[in-house]
Amino acid sequence: MKFTCTRDNLIEGLNIVQKAIPGKSNTPVLEGLLIEVSEDLILTGSDSEISITYQFPAIIEEIGGVVVSSKTFCDIIRKLPDMYVTVETSADGNDLIINSGGAHFEINLMNRAAYPKINFLSTENSFSINKGSLRSLIKQTAFAASQENSRPILKGVLMENKENILRFVAIDGFRLALKYVESNCETDFSIVVPARVLNELSKIIDKDEELINVCFSENQIMFYTDTFKVVSSLLKGEFFDYSRMIPSDFTAVMNVGTKELLGSIERVALVLEDDRKWPIVMKTYSDEVVINVAGERGVSREVVSAEISGQEIEIYYNSRNIMDCLKAVENERISVKFTTTKGPSIIVSEEDDSFLFLVMPVKPKIR
Amino acid sequence: MKFTCTRDNLIEGLNIVQKAIPGKSNTPVLEGLLIEVSEDLILTGSDSEISITYQFPAIIEEIGGVVVSSKTFCDIIRKLPDMYVTVETSADGNDLIINSGGAHFEINLMNRAAYPKINFLSTENSFSINKGSLRSLIKQTAFAASQENSRPILKGVLMENKENILRFVAIDGFRLALKYVESNCETDFSIVVPARVLNELSKIIDKDEELINVCFSENQIMFYTDTFKVVSSLLKGEFFDYSRMIPSDFTAVMNVGTKELLGSIERVALVLEDDRKWPIVMKTYSDEVVINVAGERGVSREVVSAEISGQEIEIYYNSRNIMDCLKAVENERISVKFTTTKGPSIIVSEEDDSFLFLVMPVKPKIR
Repeated sequence: MKFTCTRDNLIEGLNIVQKAIPGKSNTPVLEGLLIEVSEDLILTGSDSEISITYQFPAIIEEIGGVVVSSKTFCDIIRKLPDMYVTVETSADGNDLIINSGGAHFEINLMNRAAYPKINFLSTENSFSINKGSLRSLIKQTAFAASQENSRPILKGVLMENKENILRFVAIDGFRLALKYVESNCETDFSIVVPARVLNELSKIIDKDEELINVCFSENQIMFYTDTFKVVSSLLKGEFFDYSRMIPSDFTAVMNVGTKELLGSIERVALVLEDDRKWPIVMKTYSDEVVINVAGERGVSREVVSAEISGQEIEIYYNSRNIMDCLKAVENERISVKFTTTKGPSIIVSEEDDSFLFLVMPVKPKIR
Repeated sequence: MKFTCTRDNLIEGLNIVQKAIPGKSNTPVLEGLLIEVSEDLILTGSDSEISITYQFPAIIEEIGGVVVSSKTFCDIIRKLPDMYVTVETSADGNDLIINSGGAHFEINLMNRAAYPKINFLSTENSFSINKGSLRSLIKQTAFAASQENSRPILKGVLMENKENILRFVAIDGFRLALKYVESNCETDFSIVVPARVLNELSKIIDKDEELINVCFSENQIMFYTDTFKVVSSLLKGEFFDYSRMIPSDFTAVMNVGTKELLGSIERVALVLEDDRKWPIVMKTYSDEVVINVAGERGVSREVVSAEISGQEIEIYYNSRNIMDCLKAVENERISVKFTTTKGPSIIVSEEDDSFLFLVMPVKPKIR
């Protein structure tokens, strides 16, 4: 195997496939980077859940493929003195030789035979989505997926396509996040993708309006463009019937600036050491909401102007749950709709019905 | 106690005194920030070794002093919504009240009586040094102080004034760093200051040419300006007679670009996992030096152009020791002067004799 390319192209590809490569793995070969040379140069990283390949043109002198320590290879490529780099296997096939400017490296190869076979899906039944929409779908839902191992299905995001609407939903037991966009996919489906995979994917895709393709099988999903492929296993099991969780009757509605409310909660929560231990209290008046916290470090209070209709309410939340939702809002103003002090509240926008966050209040507890 | 000031002035002061405040301390009151109000506002942070005060004008309404959790107070001040902040003790004297815009906090006070008394030194016999010179003195020596507790005196930097030359020297057993500047101090002295204190000091002082004052007693040293004071305990014990360690006869001299040599060593060292286990090898030829490494990850080699006189030499170094020295060089080119493969090498500049680094070679060990 032998190729020459620019250092910067190589670094760009490494930055992407590295997101699938674990720093430490019980299967050491997965700490490796698969480098394959055919018509193009193809870099691959993989762990047990996600595989990423990145493909780009290079000057190919000899085809072949090797696995090397991703960390060593990346450390070296990032520091190369010249803008071009030539990479080849040694004559005895035991080392990878890297030459750039006056620098010469021979690094140990890993056992390529031990590297897992990656199943790339057939792209026959694929649909496409623009990258900006995909980023919003992920940003506005994946944060609400569960971190706990107790119900594995909740570590995923439901991807549901129905009548040309693609909906992402995540639930962790204390909150729910839902976002939809219009889709060009004619087939209805409902699958669950690990939230972690979506978060990595959203770091890879640019903000621009180019399209990204999606296809899936019974067990896997693949997001791909001409340059990269991200393949992930799907989560198995029944997702919650989220539609039954969303209330439609409300006792009060608060219209408020998103940043103002978020900034205030971030500040009052500073008196907390453990946000799971002490709640924040929101009390509505006719034209303002007062937020109070009594925490380990002291007490705090902030007043935020708001348009409020319906009954006055005094309601307790976990600060982190509500802040995460507010951070995911892309609109300047939101409506917080309250049911009761024990029932779910929802965060929506009057101009934009494409998202909905649901937050469960917590029990009153005052220091 | 009550005062009003701008958030930004307060943040500037907190950034400075926080460097003396430990995140966790066995003496919890040291995790506190001392706030004192007299003619000015005075902030103080301290641990067992270093104390820093920062003094600046504020609108004073009531004099007094309190101790609060530094972390809580800093977290709150950094996030305040308004550019002004008013701080006062509560009527019952148990809390500190912070008001800024619509935000209101009451945070727990700590026990001021438990806060240590800080000895500020008499400034009668002080001398001054410009900040840029002090920064260079620290940057070019403190890195070479020992990290080990086995010989505590070597965790310090020798500050020696002799015939209007102020010299800083640090030694860790494998290398020595020396830097001098001219001084306006007429009194000869020799004291040892903890390297850690000097490193914190160098983060505080700006690059400009203003003067900083220095005075010391038998046990302490104080660096001060109109706005801040840094007081540190001195290290006790006899420092090594460094002058006897510096060789004057050399078998070879290599003139080389600082950045070229540093960049090459940084690259070849990338095949090392543990730099204490495997050395780098430098071999000189008539007009170049070849650097080879055989490490856990593979082998590497780089060639650097150099002007070389004297005998050819093949010499082994710890990569970290020599890189640290090269990073501290401020000149474009250096001379590396070799004695033998077992004796010390020195790094100096032909145009600038104000600094000298000494590096001990290590034993040959080839993988």
